[in-house]
Amino acid sequence: MRGKAVQDYYPDDIAVCYGCGKSNKHGYQIKTYWEGEETVSCFQPQPYHTAFPGYVYGGLIASLIDCHATATAASAKYHEDDTSLGTDMLERFVTVSLHVDYVAPTPIDTSLELRGRVKESKGPKMVICLTLSAEGKETAQGEVVALKMPEDFPSKHE
Amino acid sequence: MRGKAVQDYYPDDIAVCYGCGKSNKHGYQIKTYWEGEETVSCFQPQPYHTAFPGYVYGGLIASLIDCHATATAASAKYHEDDTSLGTDMLERFVTVSLHVDYVAPTPIDTSLELRGRVKESKGPKMVICLTLSAEGKETAQGEVVALKMPEDFPSKHE
Repeated sequence: MRGKAVQDYYPDDIAVCYGCGKSNKHGYQIKTYWEGEETVSCFQPQPYHTAFPGYVYGGLIASLIDCHATATAASAKYHEDDTSLGTDMLERFVTVSLHVDYVAPTPIDTSLELRGRVKESKGPKMVICLTLSAEGKETAQGEVVALKMPEDFPSKHE
Repeated sequence: MRGKAVQDYYPDDIAVCYGCGKSNKHGYQIKTYWEGEETVSCFQPQPYHTAFPGYVYGGLIASLIDCHATATAASAKYHEDDTSLGTDMLERFVTVSLHVDYVAPTPIDTSLELRGRVKESKGPKMVICLTLSAEGKETAQGEVVALKMPEDFPSKHE
């Protein structure tokens, strides 16, 4: 539909994230795209992703914000340099901290729209600001501090 | 095993939370218990709840922290007053903000232990501090601001 998403450039062998890994068949498979200076992702909750009847579970909202943020961080330099992602694999970013403000209940029977923007970039650390909207209304705001995955990040391949 | 959990006292008609609702068959069904001045919850991740091979997805960690915190908030007054939950239904708390610091990768092939504690209680607002540990090592810290569910909280019963 929209071409390859940021997550499609994650190396296959570690693309197992429950939130956004293309190799995780059980997961949410979030897809992040750039639009101007923002990243955008849309997600349709399942009927059982409830907090209360009719409203989306806050843990899902936190999950979407987390994965959309690390995708924004991983691809920001390419976007800034106006460089095509081409055939390279992206370096992954890991979440150091996640903050979510739930500003209004999020209706479940509609597509959710996430938007992300780089707030700060300093060496291997990036701060990403995000919003989540439903039916045109902002229902959550997030801030994620992400770090380029250290080379000594432990690996437990099965 | 340990008797009724906090979540077992949530009113049936709104016990649909994906994280902790006893009526949500798709969800995590988190169970929170009091131990002294702390609440405790154990959770066994599924093999597909991965962030990277061998490690737990941060969105799941945020979800566990969120639900364990609101359960702590909902039951804290009973605990403080040394009052049995008896046959009453608990008033629910909703999350206003969620903050998680990921201090180390969380191994996936073990049970996770959550601990919660009331940091602040003022009128309908409570602040809950939490930790998540795996194999005896703390891997995440959380802080949740929760609010007693307002009477005008929108309800969309299907």
